[in-house]
Amino acid sequence: MDEKVLLGHGSGGTMMKRLIDEVFFDAYAGDELRRGDDAAVLPPLSADARLAFSTDSFVVSPHFFPGGDIGRLAVCGTVNDVATCGAKPLYLSCGFVLEEGYPMDDLRRICRSMAEAAQEAGVKLVTGDTKVVNRGHGDGVYINTSGVGEIAPEVNLSGAFCKPSDAVLVSGTLGDHGITIMSCRESLSFSADVRSDAAPLNHLIADVLAAAPDVRCFRDPTRGGLASTLNELAGQSGVSIEIEEEEIPVRDAVRGACDMLGYDPLQVANEGKMVCVVAADQANAALEAMRSSAYGKDAAIIGAVAEFDERRGPAVFVRNAFGGRRILDMLVGEQLPRIC
Amino acid sequence: MDEKVLLGHGSGGTMMKRLIDEVFFDAYAGDELRRGDDAAVLPPLSADARLAFSTDSFVVSPHFFPGGDIGRLAVCGTVNDVATCGAKPLYLSCGFVLEEGYPMDDLRRICRSMAEAAQEAGVKLVTGDTKVVNRGHGDGVYINTSGVGEIAPEVNLSGAFCKPSDAVLVSGTLGDHGITIMSCRESLSFSADVRSDAAPLNHLIADVLAAAPDVRCFRDPTRGGLASTLNELAGQSGVSIEIEEEEIPVRDAVRGACDMLGYDPLQVANEGKMVCVVAADQANAALEAMRSSAYGKDAAIIGAVAEFDERRGPAVFVRNAFGGRRILDMLVGEQLPRIC
Repeated sequence: MDEKVLLGHGSGGTMMKRLIDEVFFDAYAGDELRRGDDAAVLPPLSADARLAFSTDSFVVSPHFFPGGDIGRLAVCGTVNDVATCGAKPLYLSCGFVLEEGYPMDDLRRICRSMAEAAQEAGVKLVTGDTKVVNRGHGDGVYINTSGVGEIAPEVNLSGAFCKPSDAVLVSGTLGDHGITIMSCRESLSFSADVRSDAAPLNHLIADVLAAAPDVRCFRDPTRGGLASTLNELAGQSGVSIEIEEEEIPVRDAVRGACDMLGYDPLQVANEGKMVCVVAADQANAALEAMRSSAYGKDAAIIGAVAEFDERRGPAVFVRNAFGGRRILDMLVGEQLPRIC
Repeated sequence: MDEKVLLGHGSGGTMMKRLIDEVFFDAYAGDELRRGDDAAVLPPLSADARLAFSTDSFVVSPHFFPGGDIGRLAVCGTVNDVATCGAKPLYLSCGFVLEEGYPMDDLRRICRSMAEAAQEAGVKLVTGDTKVVNRGHGDGVYINTSGVGEIAPEVNLSGAFCKPSDAVLVSGTLGDHGITIMSCRESLSFSADVRSDAAPLNHLIADVLAAAPDVRCFRDPTRGGLASTLNELAGQSGVSIEIEEEEIPVRDAVRGACDMLGYDPLQVANEGKMVCVVAADQANAALEAMRSSAYGKDAAIIGAVAEFDERRGPAVFVRNAFGGRRILDMLVGEQLPRIC
């Protein structure tokens, strides 16, 4: 096998066939993928199950970082997006855009990482595609994953379902992924103390739904962080959201880095955290379910949904320990490009 | 709205929201996409229907060419891949990787083209994602589409099902797309006479299946052309395939360009053609169905499946008008990079 990706690996000819056999199939092929047809043929979904479908492209730089790599991110990101609507994620597709000259060993390592994350999440990579672009027209590797899952008939979640008095939870510490990527990129001194939280959260979501059926919605606070997620939910539901600053879990190393660099940890990206809005009387049940789950031990109730703010429209407010209240806005533009 | 794509359009903040609202939603949003959750929630499939799932990334250069653009290609390519297994394509996802500085008007034009192709195919764009990479790390726009469809219980197709004596059909002239792209790129003089065949073929496939239920498989001869497709089918089924050179439809302009440039039209990419293998006694029914369909008027029966060749293994042979027989190999490496 060649040591670097060549244009011919995207040709549709024998070189591409060898790449598929020796790199992709070697890492993660099951029967569906090996069948070699242009589409995966998959068994019928459970009776009356609705279909969940989501897509995400990954352009993170660098490709490898403490706590993960672009492959783990690509699997977890789409698994989490599918799971947010209460679906059981089942199948993933994987589309690579490779740049001529990319080291084959790095590609193998990414594929192994995808296989591990898929196994952990319990999903199958069933269909794929590979394109190669000429040198100078990519950045080594971009990955798109799309995911399909099934939603049980009794589950009905949406960011539009939040109601005043509902509790707002997060499944753990905020900002770990974003600060890790930035510290790698800039070789900052605190890089030893932070690692990405990239993780599949479908099992956590299933546990919470079983314990607290009146969940209104889940959403993963990726690009734009908690601030974007809560503002989106407030907008979709036509409500305000009030959170308590001191309830929000943030690691000391992340807080220190944010202080130093002038970032708000509430606007920094996460890749293994879930926001959950749930009826107030099930907030503790949801919290306990999160804390019992592998990726939820630092979960916390951080605030509540409030009435629509007449003056501001849908808005998010943060209250600090001294009772002061500030508005938490969405970012306007770019804080950390290519974070995922 | 800004005139060019900026890094902030990939931020997860308000700039990204504006891009989504004013460009993507404006072109093709239905209720599923506007809902604003992280995954599309779609109704249950028909009872007992199996799921078809496929993905394709598009990196074609240039983005606009006679007969289509990267947007039309992105919709048709995935619709066709899903349809090859006999599925009815239903839903598409769309993931953009945009390069900082890309003209917003070009992006709008691409999105309109996607909307038109989706409408023609009868599929919905239900979920999407946008990433922006810094200048010099892309080529304006790369698009991934993934597609989901449903397969009726009685339909069971695969490239592994070809049997000796089966007929081999193509739905029209070969090489149009590849020669068009190349002539654009090189500003060659014959460019006025050729145009891409990019088209959704799901309706053609449905018509053929209705007329000829003993179809073994469909496959679209994209990268690597007819040569790759037939060699793949021969390999999957463990058979040989024999085709008659003079039965293969090729436009004069394409043949002329191939002669001039030293290409074999059987190895050049198509984006609106389908190969079909069908039981011999239904070959004419399949042919008539193709010819009655919008994109199949030049369809032809071009050959037949033969026994496995003991000496060569699975192989494809081309017979010319004088009775000579040559082996048609897959391309090894790259003929025309970034053709789709």
